[in-house]
Amino acid sequence: MTEPQEQKHEPTRVAWIAGVGASAGLGAALARRFAREGLTVAVTGRSRERLDALADEIRGAGGNVIALPGDVTSESDLAAITRQLASIGTLEVAVFNAAAATRAATLELTAEQFEAAWRVTTLGGFLFARAALQPLLASGRGSLFFTGATASLRGRPPFAAFASAKAGLRSLTQSLAREFGPRNIHVAHVVVDGGIDGERLRTSAPQRVAERGPDGLLNPDDIADAYWFLHRQGRSAWSQEIDLRPFNESF
Amino acid sequence: MTEPQEQKHEPTRVAWIAGVGASAGLGAALARRFAREGLTVAVTGRSRERLDALADEIRGAGGNVIALPGDVTSESDLAAITRQLASIGTLEVAVFNAAAATRAATLELTAEQFEAAWRVTTLGGFLFARAALQPLLASGRGSLFFTGATASLRGRPPFAAFASAKAGLRSLTQSLAREFGPRNIHVAHVVVDGGIDGERLRTSAPQRVAERGPDGLLNPDDIADAYWFLHRQGRSAWSQEIDLRPFNESF
Amino acid sequence: MTEPQEQKHEPTRVAWIAGVGASAGLGAALARRFAREGLTVAVTGRSRERLDALADEIRGAGGNVIALPGDVTSESDLAAITRQLASIGTLEVAVFNAAAATRAATLELTAEQFEAAWRVTTLGGFLFARAALQPLLASGRGSLFFTGATASLRGRPPFAAFASAKAGLRSLTQSLAREFGPRNIHVAHVVVDGGIDGERLRTSAPQRVAERGPDGLLNPDDIADAYWFLHRQGRSAWSQEIDLRPFNESF
Amino acid sequence: MTEPQEQKHEPTRVAWIAGVGASAGLGAALARRFAREGLTVAVTGRSRERLDALADEIRGAGGNVIALPGDVTSESDLAAITRQLASIGTLEVAVFNAAAATRAATLELTAEQFEAAWRVTTLGGFLFARAALQPLLASGRGSLFFTGATASLRGRPPFAAFASAKAGLRSLTQSLAREFGPRNIHVAHVVVDGGIDGERLRTSAPQRVAERGPDGLLNPDDIADAYWFLHRQGRSAWSQEIDLRPFNESF
Repeated sequence: MTEPQEQKHEPTRVAWIAGVGASAGLGAALARRFAREGLTVAVTGRSRERLDALADEIRGAGGNVIALPGDVTSESDLAAITRQLASIGTLEVAVFNAAAATRAATLELTAEQFEAAWRVTTLGGFLFARAALQPLLASGRGSLFFTGATASLRGRPPFAAFASAKAGLRSLTQSLAREFGPRNIHVAHVVVDGGIDGERLRTSAPQRVAERGPDGLLNPDDIADAYWFLHRQGRSAWSQEIDLRPFNESF
Repeated sequence: MTEPQEQKHEPTRVAWIAGVGASAGLGAALARRFAREGLTVAVTGRSRERLDALADEIRGAGGNVIALPGDVTSESDLAAITRQLASIGTLEVAVFNAAAATRAATLELTAEQFEAAWRVTTLGGFLFARAALQPLLASGRGSLFFTGATASLRGRPPFAAFASAKAGLRSLTQSLAREFGPRNIHVAHVVVDGGIDGERLRTSAPQRVAERGPDGLLNPDDIADAYWFLHRQGRSAWSQEIDLRPFNESF
Repeated sequence: MTEPQEQKHEPTRVAWIAGVGASAGLGAALARRFAREGLTVAVTGRSRERLDALADEIRGAGGNVIALPGDVTSESDLAAITRQLASIGTLEVAVFNAAAATRAATLELTAEQFEAAWRVTTLGGFLFARAALQPLLASGRGSLFFTGATASLRGRPPFAAFASAKAGLRSLTQSLAREFGPRNIHVAHVVVDGGIDGERLRTSAPQRVAERGPDGLLNPDDIADAYWFLHRQGRSAWSQEIDLRPFNESF
Repeated sequence: MTEPQEQKHEPTRVAWIAGVGASAGLGAALARRFAREGLTVAVTGRSRERLDALADEIRGAGGNVIALPGDVTSESDLAAITRQLASIGTLEVAVFNAAAATRAATLELTAEQFEAAWRVTTLGGFLFARAALQPLLASGRGSLFFTGATASLRGRPPFAAFASAKAGLRSLTQSLAREFGPRNIHVAHVVVDGGIDGERLRTSAPQRVAERGPDGLLNPDDIADAYWFLHRQGRSAWSQEIDLRPFNESF
């Protein structure tokens, strides 16, 4: 018979997912996946409503979850969130999934748009990394993952702003991997090279979804598998970057 | 109640691993891993003795295995092996792990050495791919994986021959992925970026092994995890390339 | 005998170099080079004194030059400068050479430092491109070049901020090349992969300069040759990116 | 008054171009360009007739040229050629421009075709490099350049064999640059990213030539400019790789 006291001493393992929006998106799939594996999931995004709906769903499926709404570009939001995280348990994995997909001909991009893309995607990634690294380094281990895109690897119109921001984020993950890998923190970058089969495309481009055929867009659950795999890698063989794309994608 | 006849009709799932040598090497670890997952493993390498020893070990652990010795640069060897594979069951995953690591100052490399590196590493990869693709395409699905190295990504002395051959192999995997992905064959390239903790380094460079510290060389079992993960990926999110390196590796 | 009136009708060809600082730096070398080739050079930087000193030197050597001080991160400064450029002649080549080299352990980087690196290096590049593209597109031809660095290609500590900003700039040049190449504007990115033999290193790291030996740091005049070559390329064979490094550099 | 004896002592500067075929091809353009700059050009290719015709043309234009027919995959041919080169003068620049463009669906490629592509493109490059490096190192300076292609950077059907061979060649140039740069030999790789406006395309794909429009294919003379520029670079700022493509090329 298991003694109840023993269970109390086991620390709560926490996964923090930032950039959580629509229920059909990647952030939500990541939250579900880490919850299913027994971690307590903290979800961050700008819409409290969406976070609460997701939290209800995860709780309904038996998972542990807490909604921590906030803006990843705000240092004070992040400070408040990390204080809450510390009270929940030990941070084991942190995923930065936020991005601002800006689409415009370059001469029509305003300075504000160019900056906004960077602020969410790159500065957000930097602030998130700094916020997550402190508890991770304190516990001496853990994972810090970032979501990339096709545009992370090359710039092309009409995505000049988005691609520039994503390239800046990718570079940052390389610096972090080289700096914190030897300190036992696994930093990885996941290149999502194709359309995600989520709310955005189903709403904005239903025809494209249909044309791609079955499995022709990235299923968020399939993507989430890769993050879970990365988190489970033995540290003698860590990946810094993996690409993911549908079997029938041109690349 | 399950009828015993039904079980007979379930086809035998086969994993074919080529480039299997020392018991402590990556090829052997891949064979053990796929056997543990319930596949029948066919192991190919030039030394029948080593293959038999590995097969005995895997059988001892309850796995199904068959030793198919041969030379991956020989079309007739490969033809004979694929005939045997066909009689065993359905090929589901094929891994090319052979390579010839040549080390020399460029002006001291002979044409024969330069060619030998290519013959095993690149031509072998091509012939293996062709041999494996026929049963894979016939069954309409499956995985075809290749082992890469740091040198796959950039040439540097004293590895001019090895790097050139590995770069040629990597390019081949890209062509194969683009050609056969849409036909439901998952082609991936694994960049092993660091020393493998195997027989070769333990014998030839024990000091380097010691200096790297715990987990400072790639554990073959950790590497094998990545191949298994790749084989299990949902086809909406296939990786074409992943890198693997120890947490404390400089890169 | 040539009639003097004819010469009046020939339009003044203008080269605009932004990111001009020390007399021994790359910006100054670019200005000298384009002046020597007969273009009227407009030099932009934050220090009017330095620009005036350089302009005096170039004029003394028989070149045509105008100092247009300003901040590349300021849209109003850039608007004022492009108005002045228009009154001088026809813009033929524009070079963005500004950057903020930030060096810090990642956890010691403030959000302000991270942002400042991006603001000068990446946002500056975007605003400069937009300002230069209008006259270039109006005249139907011309060159738009950007200075990159080792860090443009990979992130590594202690350069997380600088590398992220430079990667963002590099991506931007790819988008611009793909968008404006077909409109006859040559967009190229020059990767300066090594220390420049200029005022900064001679002052801050004289020992490193000595250790590198003759030609062991990039001579700004040698770098400037590459920009001039790029500007002269026939449009059937334009380069988008070239790397430059000393003959004895490790890479 | 200059004494005639002094002129005798000035060594003859030699450029060796291998992979010279059609008069309208890149090899011929390189030969013309180096001859125009005053070097004595040695041209190597498999067709003595074509070499003789080119030599006649270059001589007619006042250049110094010698036809040295041979097969770059033959060590004995190369040995004979380098003996002849030594009797002419001092080798200053050597360009490897040979390649075998193989086009086939991967499963239809024979082992012989796969090998033939590698033998000309990659092994040829290695043997040529070794042959050229000896005189270059003996004189303590010089250039060693290689022609690459779009396929050098990524594999794609139906170019699996060609791309693999070109990737192997590119890797080789990286090893050579890292090994021989510090010994004052400039090793560079030129990525020709697009169709060359030469005999092959004009004959085999006249429609494609027409569709590309003016300057829509790479003019061999524009390409040759880049090789000449590379040869003239100051050694404080050497390029290892440059890409060249038409202004209106998609990439």
